[in-house]
Formats: sequence, C-alpha cells, structure tokens
Amino acid sequence: MPRSSLADIDCSIAQTLDVVTEWWTLLILRNAFHGMRTFDAFQEHLEISPSVLSARLKKLTDRGILEKRPSSTDGRSHEYRLTRRGLDLYPVLIALKDWGEKWVPNGRGRRMELIEKATGKPIRGAAVLSHDGRPLDPWDVQPTAGPGADDKIRGLMRKASG
Amino acid sequence: MPRSSLADIDCSIAQTLDVVTEWWTLLILRNAFHGMRTFDAFQEHLEISPSVLSARLKKLTDRGILEKRPSSTDGRSHEYRLTRRGLDLYPVLIALKDWGEKWVPNGRGRRMELIEKATGKPIRGAAVLSHDGRPLDPWDVQPTAGPGADDKIRGLMRKASG
Repeated sequence: MPRSSLADIDCSIAQTLDVVTEWWTLLILRNAFHGMRTFDAFQEHLEISPSVLSARLKKLTDRGILEKRPSSTDGRSHEYRLTRRGLDLYPVLIALKDWGEKWVPNGRGRRMELIEKATGKPIRGAAVLSHDGRPLDPWDVQPTAGPGADDKIRGLMRKASG
Repeated sequence: MPRSSLADIDCSIAQTLDVVTEWWTLLILRNAFHGMRTFDAFQEHLEISPSVLSARLKKLTDRGILEKRPSSTDGRSHEYRLTRRGLDLYPVLIALKDWGEKWVPNGRGRRMELIEKATGKPIRGAAVLSHDGRPLDPWDVQPTAGPGADDKIRGLMRKASG
C-alpha cells in the first residue's frame, strides 16, 4: 500500500521533509530568518489565511523550530523567534534560494542580495564541504550506510556503490 | 483570498519549492543522487504507487531536473539521469540530511556516512559560505533587495533591516 506519511521512513532527509516540506512552513521560516516575528506581520506579508497560518505556526512551535514568547515591545501580544533548531535550517533555505536564483530567474536580475555584515560583500551561498572546508560536487562523495541505517537505507547504499 | 500555488510568488525560495517541495519528489532525487536510475528500482525502493511515481518523474523531467533516455544496459527500457540543473540541488539535499541527522536522530547513530572519495574522510556537510569561503551564521548576513526584487520582496527586506 502506498505511504501517506514520511514519519515512518527512517531517513534523515525524510525526517526533515516531514517537518519542513509544506510550502507555507518554509515561507514562514524564510520570513522569520528576515526578522519577522508577529502573527499579523506573517499574515499580511504572506497573504495566508489566519487558520492556515495558526496551524503552521503551531506545528513549527510544537517541533521546537520556533519559540512563542511574550512580545518584547507589547507585553499583551506574542512573537515567534527561531530556536537553535530553527536557525540550523539556514543552509536549507539558502540552498533553495541559490537554486531558484540560478535556475528560475525572473529576467530582471537577482531578487535578493545576501551581504556579509562584516565585509559588506555578497556571500557565495550554500555549498557541500569536505572535512577541511573544500566545496564538493556530488560525484566527489560516496554515500555509505552508517551505524543507524535500517534495511531500506542499506539497500539504497548498496545500489549507490554497485 | 489565500493562495493555492507558489507559481505566482516571485521569490527564489518559493520558485524552488514549487518544483521540489513535494515529498516524493525529494525522495526520488535522494535516490537519484545515490545512483538509482530505473522506474522499477524507484518503485520498489520507495514503495510508491506506479501512478504517483509516473507523475513525479514526469514533473521532474518536464522541469529539466531529470533526463529520460534509453537505458545504457537495455535498449528497450529507459533510465532517468540527473541533469546539471538537477545536480545543482545537491546542497539542498545535503542540508536536509544534515538537519535530520542532528535534530531527528534515531538513537542508533548516523544513518548515512558521506565519504569524500579522494580522501576517504567523512564530509563536513552543507554550509553557507562568505565570498572567500568562510562558513557564516544567519546573524552574519544582511538580506537586501536585488535589482529583480518585486514589492513583496522589498517589503520583506525593509522589515529585515528595520
């Protein structure tokens, strides 16, 4: 029978997708990385229905990616802040951005420039690095099963090396 | 009215999500990066229904991420190979994997080890790099509107710097 959920697939990619795969979830995170914090700001900027936004923010809070806390400027309202777990999604967001700028451009130039504050220079973007920090291409890397691999992952790795 | 598609959001992240957000799509790509090439191999490994798999492979082929061509071993069948455009999704996949291993571990150790072929050492993983290759954290980077930004992106950037 076909699956309808990723939760039972013991793969690190599937487990991450189970949390962040939904469109709105990643766009909410994009805005959070840009410093957006309040329900009203997310709702206005994303043109998302309040009920969908509530559900997505609840999921992100339940999964420990956002933290809901009293507003720093208005004690009666709340704001949503990225946790360490959420901040660790930064390379995912930047890798998605890099690919979109390169392969789905809008013909008017880059939509967004990411500038390193310390140097004022545009960043290079997301890359896969070797142990000593050299950028690697897919064909430079051999996937192998780790100690936590289940039979499905082991099967995939055998194909990869076969 | 709430949106039902990402296609009209002119943001490089949204445009990438519009292509790769669907669960199966990213798991098909995961397997393709591991060297899987045939319909039957994808179907058997992912336990996905043939009709869903067909639709996903067609979408990936239509978007130029996979290329369908005659099998190198059996001229009557076909295989699916990553294009340059598809290979460029590698940092997205590795960033998803890194996060899942760190934040959704299975308690038995790493599911997968990625070894650099040239050195035999485990890779460091995905990172966001400065212009000269130093790893950056989210708070090191200032997003600004580029020449291709529309009003929505400009609004987001103003919040980011405000």
